[in-house]
Amino acid sequence: MEALQFIPNNINEECGVFGVFCCENATELTYYGLHALQHRGQEGCGIATSDGQEMYRERGEGLVTEIFSGKKLTKLKGDCAIGHVRYSTAGGGGIDNVQPFLFRHHTGDFALAHNGNIVNSRGLKQMLESQGSIFQSSSDTEIFAHLVKTDRRRDRLIAIKEALTMIEGAYAFLILTNRRLYLCRDKNGLRPLSIGTLNGGYVVSSETCAFEAVGATFLRDVNPGEMVVFERDAEEPQSHLFSVDIHHNMCAMEYVYFARPDSDIEGVNVHRFRKTCGRLLAQEAPVVADIVIGIPDSSISAAIGYAEESNIPYEMGLIKNKYVGRTFIQPSQELREKGVRLKLSPVRSLLVGKRVVLIDDSIVRGTTSTRIIHMLREAGATEIHVRIGCPQIQHPCFYGVDTSTYEELISTSHSVEEVRQLINADTLYFLSEKALQQAGNRNELCMACYNGKYPTALYQTKRELNIEGKF
Amino acid sequence: MEALQFIPNNINEECGVFGVFCCENATELTYYGLHALQHRGQEGCGIATSDGQEMYRERGEGLVTEIFSGKKLTKLKGDCAIGHVRYSTAGGGGIDNVQPFLFRHHTGDFALAHNGNIVNSRGLKQMLESQGSIFQSSSDTEIFAHLVKTDRRRDRLIAIKEALTMIEGAYAFLILTNRRLYLCRDKNGLRPLSIGTLNGGYVVSSETCAFEAVGATFLRDVNPGEMVVFERDAEEPQSHLFSVDIHHNMCAMEYVYFARPDSDIEGVNVHRFRKTCGRLLAQEAPVVADIVIGIPDSSISAAIGYAEESNIPYEMGLIKNKYVGRTFIQPSQELREKGVRLKLSPVRSLLVGKRVVLIDDSIVRGTTSTRIIHMLREAGATEIHVRIGCPQIQHPCFYGVDTSTYEELISTSHSVEEVRQLINADTLYFLSEKALQQAGNRNELCMACYNGKYPTALYQTKRELNIEGKF
Amino acid sequence: MEALQFIPNNINEECGVFGVFCCENATELTYYGLHALQHRGQEGCGIATSDGQEMYRERGEGLVTEIFSGKKLTKLKGDCAIGHVRYSTAGGGGIDNVQPFLFRHHTGDFALAHNGNIVNSRGLKQMLESQGSIFQSSSDTEIFAHLVKTDRRRDRLIAIKEALTMIEGAYAFLILTNRRLYLCRDKNGLRPLSIGTLNGGYVVSSETCAFEAVGATFLRDVNPGEMVVFERDAEEPQSHLFSVDIHHNMCAMEYVYFARPDSDIEGVNVHRFRKTCGRLLAQEAPVVADIVIGIPDSSISAAIGYAEESNIPYEMGLIKNKYVGRTFIQPSQELREKGVRLKLSPVRSLLVGKRVVLIDDSIVRGTTSTRIIHMLREAGATEIHVRIGCPQIQHPCFYGVDTSTYEELISTSHSVEEVRQLINADTLYFLSEKALQQAGNRNELCMACYNGKYPTALYQTKRELNIEGKF
Amino acid sequence: MEALQFIPNNINEECGVFGVFCCENATELTYYGLHALQHRGQEGCGIATSDGQEMYRERGEGLVTEIFSGKKLTKLKGDCAIGHVRYSTAGGGGIDNVQPFLFRHHTGDFALAHNGNIVNSRGLKQMLESQGSIFQSSSDTEIFAHLVKTDRRRDRLIAIKEALTMIEGAYAFLILTNRRLYLCRDKNGLRPLSIGTLNGGYVVSSETCAFEAVGATFLRDVNPGEMVVFERDAEEPQSHLFSVDIHHNMCAMEYVYFARPDSDIEGVNVHRFRKTCGRLLAQEAPVVADIVIGIPDSSISAAIGYAEESNIPYEMGLIKNKYVGRTFIQPSQELREKGVRLKLSPVRSLLVGKRVVLIDDSIVRGTTSTRIIHMLREAGATEIHVRIGCPQIQHPCFYGVDTSTYEELISTSHSVEEVRQLINADTLYFLSEKALQQAGNRNELCMACYNGKYPTALYQTKRELNIEGKF
Repeated sequence: MEALQFIPNNINEECGVFGVFCCENATELTYYGLHALQHRGQEGCGIATSDGQEMYRERGEGLVTEIFSGKKLTKLKGDCAIGHVRYSTAGGGGIDNVQPFLFRHHTGDFALAHNGNIVNSRGLKQMLESQGSIFQSSSDTEIFAHLVKTDRRRDRLIAIKEALTMIEGAYAFLILTNRRLYLCRDKNGLRPLSIGTLNGGYVVSSETCAFEAVGATFLRDVNPGEMVVFERDAEEPQSHLFSVDIHHNMCAMEYVYFARPDSDIEGVNVHRFRKTCGRLLAQEAPVVADIVIGIPDSSISAAIGYAEESNIPYEMGLIKNKYVGRTFIQPSQELREKGVRLKLSPVRSLLVGKRVVLIDDSIVRGTTSTRIIHMLREAGATEIHVRIGCPQIQHPCFYGVDTSTYEELISTSHSVEEVRQLINADTLYFLSEKALQQAGNRNELCMACYNGKYPTALYQTKRELNIEGKF
Repeated sequence: MEALQFIPNNINEECGVFGVFCCENATELTYYGLHALQHRGQEGCGIATSDGQEMYRERGEGLVTEIFSGKKLTKLKGDCAIGHVRYSTAGGGGIDNVQPFLFRHHTGDFALAHNGNIVNSRGLKQMLESQGSIFQSSSDTEIFAHLVKTDRRRDRLIAIKEALTMIEGAYAFLILTNRRLYLCRDKNGLRPLSIGTLNGGYVVSSETCAFEAVGATFLRDVNPGEMVVFERDAEEPQSHLFSVDIHHNMCAMEYVYFARPDSDIEGVNVHRFRKTCGRLLAQEAPVVADIVIGIPDSSISAAIGYAEESNIPYEMGLIKNKYVGRTFIQPSQELREKGVRLKLSPVRSLLVGKRVVLIDDSIVRGTTSTRIIHMLREAGATEIHVRIGCPQIQHPCFYGVDTSTYEELISTSHSVEEVRQLINADTLYFLSEKALQQAGNRNELCMACYNGKYPTALYQTKRELNIEGKF
Repeated sequence: MEALQFIPNNINEECGVFGVFCCENATELTYYGLHALQHRGQEGCGIATSDGQEMYRERGEGLVTEIFSGKKLTKLKGDCAIGHVRYSTAGGGGIDNVQPFLFRHHTGDFALAHNGNIVNSRGLKQMLESQGSIFQSSSDTEIFAHLVKTDRRRDRLIAIKEALTMIEGAYAFLILTNRRLYLCRDKNGLRPLSIGTLNGGYVVSSETCAFEAVGATFLRDVNPGEMVVFERDAEEPQSHLFSVDIHHNMCAMEYVYFARPDSDIEGVNVHRFRKTCGRLLAQEAPVVADIVIGIPDSSISAAIGYAEESNIPYEMGLIKNKYVGRTFIQPSQELREKGVRLKLSPVRSLLVGKRVVLIDDSIVRGTTSTRIIHMLREAGATEIHVRIGCPQIQHPCFYGVDTSTYEELISTSHSVEEVRQLINADTLYFLSEKALQQAGNRNELCMACYNGKYPTALYQTKRELNIEGKF
Repeated sequence: MEALQFIPNNINEECGVFGVFCCENATELTYYGLHALQHRGQEGCGIATSDGQEMYRERGEGLVTEIFSGKKLTKLKGDCAIGHVRYSTAGGGGIDNVQPFLFRHHTGDFALAHNGNIVNSRGLKQMLESQGSIFQSSSDTEIFAHLVKTDRRRDRLIAIKEALTMIEGAYAFLILTNRRLYLCRDKNGLRPLSIGTLNGGYVVSSETCAFEAVGATFLRDVNPGEMVVFERDAEEPQSHLFSVDIHHNMCAMEYVYFARPDSDIEGVNVHRFRKTCGRLLAQEAPVVADIVIGIPDSSISAAIGYAEESNIPYEMGLIKNKYVGRTFIQPSQELREKGVRLKLSPVRSLLVGKRVVLIDDSIVRGTTSTRIIHMLREAGATEIHVRIGCPQIQHPCFYGVDTSTYEELISTSHSVEEVRQLINADTLYFLSEKALQQAGNRNELCMACYNGKYPTALYQTKRELNIEGKF
């Protein structure tokens, strides 16, 4: 999948959250947990903790290992913690938008970490400001904090539940106070959130791969429309449903692109999902070829599935340099034209004279596909048959995945055949929606970016969107 | 392969060298070339350049992207450059041992970059010191510079050739002066060194993968015992043989472990070599099992080969966290015991109840294998059949690969069956030497670490070695 | 003056503010202006700018030159800017308390920088929270932003004026919006704030020394109880009085200790003020001695004044190491006892056998004086006559100067004679209040820390203060 | 004194050295000692230590507090240490020229730190290279190491003494081995080097101010032409004279500009020297004026001396910003023209309408004087009478002080009257050589930069120097 761009006036984030409740070494565990979720966001990260009396918070712009030196970790005291890794924002944001947010209040401080996107944020913000709220970030998440109106007379739990009924969109929220950890998942279940146990306490994570990293045992997923509350000294976690209109609409792109292959989402392993997609691609669109290759890292599973199903050998025809980091000096246009390669190298001796099946997870704008196919042909491939592990992306996402705007999505305005010509493939095939559902164990998935069937209202008229030139 | 340890009193290095001769943007190209060779050494790196009048050099401890900010690159002027990436040294060394070395001399400055190990360094050093030489590093490479005795009356080319006849061991040398670039490869051809062309100039690299990174075209390998000399304004490179006793003994571990899968070494692609090893493992040691898994990254090719040959599906049973870097805070012993995992995670849902074929490239001390097998059993694997992509490593390497000491090599003192019990595998098989040779296209390989047949004298008596407790 | 400590549960700050209105290079000018105010706060700094359309903000923990690399400066676009340097906070705070604060609002963003302390902050905060406000820092300044309740129907200028009538204490506020820059100074004039002109625009600064740094010309001071408003496209700045109960009570410690000697505060040059204090000390408390020395840097002016008036030669008997910075490794207790000196060195050859007049600006806890007198005696001084450039500090400050708590102030519980014995001086004299007033050109000064006459209500009962163990 | 420039093809250094022999905490003491000598060199620093068995070395480009984090200090084990602070080199150099140098040799490692300049280095280098030496830096100091030819048969002490007889110039050398610390000072005594005692061991320093910093007691200076040798287990230090042609020619600029005012050089306190110069200036060149001001920091002592002698009050008419560091962003030419000031600010309220005596330590190129006088006139000074604390600098220095080239020295080609006009002073006077000698307690001083009487041969013909355009 290509480097994604943002819808300009709206901060959308694909992020990761991790939390620990009542465990020794909560801060260190959060550090290792966030590190396992680093693929969900590399631009910023933060950790907030509580020792039951005080709350602490540290955050910064960069990788978990860059931001949290030993010194910062030791400042974060306590046995409860929540953490956040944040995806890039195209210029906007900066340190003020890095989560968790920490709010000070005479009824008790609270910290907030959020993965997702709230679709009715604009209206809520205007309402809150007219009531006197002042915002210090451009993030949706701060809106939620202002919605949680609390006073000394009633429990904050009630206030949070009320606030949840007011927001619409995709979200997994972690809210930490000195007494409690709240986990909230939107009523469509668009974003993942799982609970595990560890040494008598609890951990919670956007993806189960972080449980392996900290030695925790998977317990269950938070359900759509559910708020789970852990409380100090309480025997059991409480479960609250804050909506009756509940659906299972897990984001298909979590399986296709975002999640780590060793995570299980709603009971389905991501590597297996992708490998099945590869097998189904081989069934739906077989081709006579010499080798199968995948674009590292996210398309390897599907490529192996295709190879196994088709009996065409899988080869490492493209290699990714694993030392590409944030400090890399980009080659100038001149050097790029002369063939200096950033991340991916073709393996000439494997490609020369070969008919190649190239597996990619998705096509967004088409520019990366074009570049890779050009690179493979230059390296000697004689035919290139592109097979894509999901349907055509024809609609923007409003739930936290930055699949670019209508105008930039190549499939919005081009047929499969047109796309094939544009990227210069010999043949091109996109996996069917049906196959995707089959790979997902027949769970219902949100496929809005393929078919436009958004599970929520969008709070913006088509006209408005078009006028603003965003779709 | 496990984290390797050093033979204490001798600095051995598996490193990478890259050079550019008479190309625009020589410094940037070297930066990208070294970046492609980063897997050969992560502890330090440096670049020396020449603009025909002056020589420049910058170096530091860290990754290429960490050391070379844009500012350092702009200081390195010129159209010729050599660079070096350096493997860790167990405490010794520091910045003084980071290459290229730059020597100032009234007959002209020269810079030196070296991959390999000189086995008669001890004697040469004593001889040189008794003649008045003073050393500023503990590196073998500095010795070579002192051997190149030059005066105004004779050409430095003659002096370098003479010096080459005095050293024994494994090496690929790059020597840059304001007029020339010299490439030298030891007479056994133990370390790789290839030449490419780029925009009318030349590039040279330890591995061909760096040619793809900079857009260069492979020309040929430097031959064992050959010195190639590029000279400004000369029409053609010159080739000199400095030895008549020439052999092809490429280090087998370059194929098995060190090199990047997209490199071709002496005409054989590394991924293909490893995949063939996997196929031959399946032929030599078949087993009834449910899935094949490999230890990332170096064993994936062999695992896929095994899967294809055996028709057992390949799965991503182990995932490596790609964000593990140098600044990572290691988990405490306590956390490690509780299951906090550094780099590798098992994928529980793929492993539970499965009979697993586990492919690894080699076994050195056995501790990593033990840990991984334990991790896989914990995750639910019912049988674990270990297949190793090379023979048992029973002898230390003196040519720049740090395969630990005699005492630490598990296979020195244990039979295959004993190793199997120690690492707790159900079955264990090491690939045969014959298969390795077959994978290498019947090229001769140095297999001294498997069979003790060292291609050079060692300049140390067995007794001496044993007394010092090193073997 | 000694290293100051904080009253634990209240963040007090001696800080500096600087602003630029409608000038080219507003960001760079603010950088240089803040750099000139660096002595007022070394722990953190920030700059907020406006280009008339958008507001930008960058901040960090450290010196101006550390935080603002060229890269950060270039992000700050616009022709208007406000900046802030922040004094240390004993552990609390962190990046969230670094100013300027930036608030997002649908009626227009605004940034806020504040030097001073609000004494009725506790009550205001409770009131605001009960109305729904949520705070993200522990700073007084955020309170003010919440007081500025604005809606679309009325001008923000009115809202700011209303908010100013609600807060009590010491403050110089800068408020920047896309259209305006507001300057506000408390009705007692406790904190300084001056206006200058530069290339057709305006600059504003806590101290006039920053005008010299940027090439600006002093215009006038903001008056106590005055709000000055600069507006884009307006011909003249507007002046609003928000209080009728106006007094001139400039903090005496600004002259005595805080301000830079090249600043003029309310028309009186600080170096001249201090030199006059030295002269008056020589008149009030003459002594027979061989040399006069001052503690660098803040006591040098007074020492020279004493020397000139007394005709006793001034000598550099104490030297300060100018390279002491934030990264200095403190000597261990053991090394300190062995005589390792951090910052100040005595000049043995000037001191041996001499009767010394030692000038210091103030005595807070007495520990520094004790240490310096010990150091001078060890270096051979035979008599040490201490002369202090202000009266005894017997009361804590509530207006932003951290003069420690009642309990820690040595003069709260000790007479002059007792202090003399404790610090082991031969004689000791504190300057009279009358002399201080004379040095200040007969302007009225706030001398609450000497005489307890606080110019505002304190909003805390004595009992409450005592119970909390702070006084 | 102005920012100094370098004679292009020769690396000259004004540096500082510090050593510790057989003291606990040798590394920490060296850290604090170097920190006290930081004014002698800010570009680089290093420390080498010995624990009697092994030698360690760390170095870097930057301030002592920047280079030596706690981590680097803990690597430097041992009870003996030498350290070095290094002055800027105009482009040349880099990390390779940062001292101490550490040389590895089978007769024992040794480290070398050097303050000064060797004038016959060119010839020595050619000789050594023709004998087979290879150099890795462009520093004079490395030459000395090659001269110390040692073999197993004779004591290194003899070899060092022999080497000392071969070099000519100005130097203070510290040589550390595992058994000994050697201190060597050139036969003209051009550079200072003093010995102190501390807890039963010894310390050695370029300036005595560092003794106060570490709590050591001054013992004596190393004499010209003397080598002092400290040896483990020896009862007393040994003293060796390596020359019979001994002179006392301490560099006058050490007193005038380089040294810290709290140092004593050859028994004369630097502050007192400068103050006496100021008094003598007032006697030699009295003037009717209102105030005396000095350029901070090096001219303050002389200014106070002038004020005391003339009874004209001393004022702080120029203030230096003490936070100017290496990371400061320089104002653009445009901003500089608009009046943005880097380091020095005039104090308008003290200067306006005043007749000013301006004391400066020296004039090199005249550009700084011109700028400051312009600044003072702009701030309102009506007359400016410049008094310089040393004679006209008319000759370049070959002994380690970078007083620029013949061509750049304003006084080489201009009379006093011409200089006065160029810098736009009302009157100008340079102190006489006789007065300088009087201030120095009638010790003989090297005044070659004033009068061209170089105490050594220069090894370069005038013609050669002129042809190369350097003088």
